[in-house]
Amino acid sequence: MNSKKFFFELIKSKNNYRLGKIHTKRGIINTPAFMPVGTLGTIKSIFTDDILKTGTEVILGNTYHLFLRPGIEILNKFGGLHKYMNWQKPILTDSGGFQIMSLSKFTKIDKEKGAFFSSHIDGKKFLLSPEKSIEIQKKINSDILMVLDECPKLTVDKKIISSAIDISTHWAKRSKIAFGKSSTKALFGIVQGGIFKDLRHESLEKLIDINFDGYAMGGLAVGETQDQMLKTLEDTTYLMPKNKPRYLMGVGTPSDIVGAVKNGIDMFDCVMPTRSGRTGLAFTWEGKINLRNSKFKNDKSPLDRKCKINNLNKYSKSYLNHLINTNEILASMLISLHNVNFYQEFMKKIRESIKTGTFEAFYKKNINKYN
Amino acid sequence: MNSKKFFFELIKSKNNYRLGKIHTKRGIINTPAFMPVGTLGTIKSIFTDDILKTGTEVILGNTYHLFLRPGIEILNKFGGLHKYMNWQKPILTDSGGFQIMSLSKFTKIDKEKGAFFSSHIDGKKFLLSPEKSIEIQKKINSDILMVLDECPKLTVDKKIISSAIDISTHWAKRSKIAFGKSSTKALFGIVQGGIFKDLRHESLEKLIDINFDGYAMGGLAVGETQDQMLKTLEDTTYLMPKNKPRYLMGVGTPSDIVGAVKNGIDMFDCVMPTRSGRTGLAFTWEGKINLRNSKFKNDKSPLDRKCKINNLNKYSKSYLNHLINTNEILASMLISLHNVNFYQEFMKKIRESIKTGTFEAFYKKNINKYN
Repeated sequence: MNSKKFFFELIKSKNNYRLGKIHTKRGIINTPAFMPVGTLGTIKSIFTDDILKTGTEVILGNTYHLFLRPGIEILNKFGGLHKYMNWQKPILTDSGGFQIMSLSKFTKIDKEKGAFFSSHIDGKKFLLSPEKSIEIQKKINSDILMVLDECPKLTVDKKIISSAIDISTHWAKRSKIAFGKSSTKALFGIVQGGIFKDLRHESLEKLIDINFDGYAMGGLAVGETQDQMLKTLEDTTYLMPKNKPRYLMGVGTPSDIVGAVKNGIDMFDCVMPTRSGRTGLAFTWEGKINLRNSKFKNDKSPLDRKCKINNLNKYSKSYLNHLINTNEILASMLISLHNVNFYQEFMKKIRESIKTGTFEAFYKKNINKYN
Repeated sequence: MNSKKFFFELIKSKNNYRLGKIHTKRGIINTPAFMPVGTLGTIKSIFTDDILKTGTEVILGNTYHLFLRPGIEILNKFGGLHKYMNWQKPILTDSGGFQIMSLSKFTKIDKEKGAFFSSHIDGKKFLLSPEKSIEIQKKINSDILMVLDECPKLTVDKKIISSAIDISTHWAKRSKIAFGKSSTKALFGIVQGGIFKDLRHESLEKLIDINFDGYAMGGLAVGETQDQMLKTLEDTTYLMPKNKPRYLMGVGTPSDIVGAVKNGIDMFDCVMPTRSGRTGLAFTWEGKINLRNSKFKNDKSPLDRKCKINNLNKYSKSYLNHLINTNEILASMLISLHNVNFYQEFMKKIRESIKTGTFEAFYKKNINKYN
């Protein structure tokens, strides 16, 4: 077996939850896995070296943001994002579709041409076609690429969602052709269908016909309740190929993650640990805590006694309370790093509990803790 | 000899420049030495651990800022600033006087009572007396304390400066009494006198009568030219006790520093490496460079090929240009750390060149390079 080949190894599954390994030419990703988000080629407020220390095995890069800044020409000169930002392990890139719809003054979707959008930086107009998105992702040189899809806002209008499935399926086919063949890189399809079981099944079946290296759940984490999200996963993942990774895009809190793992998901990405880090919100084994709160003013305890990265366990909540309330950058640095490390510790516990058969107890303890 | 005793060891002096060691209970400070500034209990954008890696042997804490936030009560609970911010090596604290005059909506100076000021945060009114400043610095638990002084703005009005000397000398005496006796901590006097040789001599002689553990040059770096500043040092330092450290407050660029060393100074502090780091200005052996400049967009070279701290030598100027222009916190982190490291490398070269008798050549190469 070529060790550089991309493949998913299912190690254990019970009920719907799974323990696995994604093999890539840049290393193994143990699943369930969490991917910190490196929007503009940096996991915000964290040194690339320190990301490694948290046990992170894969990060996410945003095609839309990287396309605008620094631009593909520069990334191409560096041979891709890995060298540019000094991250040697795997990178997954999204297709840019989600940001076009959430950030740009959106112009229009054309099934045949692609998505017309204007930059949120300077208003400059661009066309992102499925082929163009793949081309950009290839220049970013990511290890796992995503197809361009149309991700509608939360709606109960089945017509809107059906239309999005129609366009997304068409784009998925074109993306697959543009991607071509690769044994070392992977292309994932994105299942749409809102919170409707029948539409999710329709979308998934069409994607399975095209045959992707992995399948993502898109169009979730867009405003639905946690129950609706988990129900949608439960309704859908059992039909997904068992020998391919399953990725829930843009999720979420540790509670969301443990719930999604129970419903068959292997991969996650979210800005939450870093964005919260910059606002003073910390994730701990005791739950979420807001370090701006004056009750921490005299608290000598650290966020996590066990975390020795950069001596994080030597910084008191009192000190963090002071730093965040005086807008010191070190607050963002310490809390973001703590949060990403906590997320990775959380994922490790999930993997261990699946391995040792104690996942259901871990799930019960955490499903409501971080909401 | 008690190894915990504070004392200055003069290792070598030639013309007016000197090589030395300040012995403190928290370690040795090799001089000439540069102190990064930890305004609010953090060297801005740099992990405390990483400050150590730059070879920094002493940092500066600002009494005014720490008094307002987090406040002395909290620092006292932690046994001082070292434990609060996890910095085990020596700390020098200023007296608060400079910030009162530069930041606060200043109310008034009263020779007998002290300096009345209002907080720049919320306008709350305070009185900082010489005794109060020493009390605060003792609670910060710094290793080197500074007397409260009146530091007038740049002026040619000798009356204003004479009055400042009068008040500062009176406060220096009171500070010394409040400080009491200590073999492990040091108290430095601050010489005023503007750019006038006679007034500098007058101020210095009065301070020598009081007898301090070290002598600082205050009232410089307030708008005078580099030539005026260096001339003032030349006019004054030769009268300073040879067996005590000499500290030039708030200076400066590497050129200022090498010029001041030539004129007998042993210690420096400045926000320049960290403040510049946050705006994208880097200090390198090739001079100052502005990383926002588009000419670095495609520049694959690092700021310093030799700097291995956090793999700094693996980050290209292109990447730094991207990060600073997209306002990423990682830009501040990487450039600030680089700059502090550069300053410490610069100080090391100064010390080595004094040791090996090549200082004058080093001086010539650098006296104009960073202006």
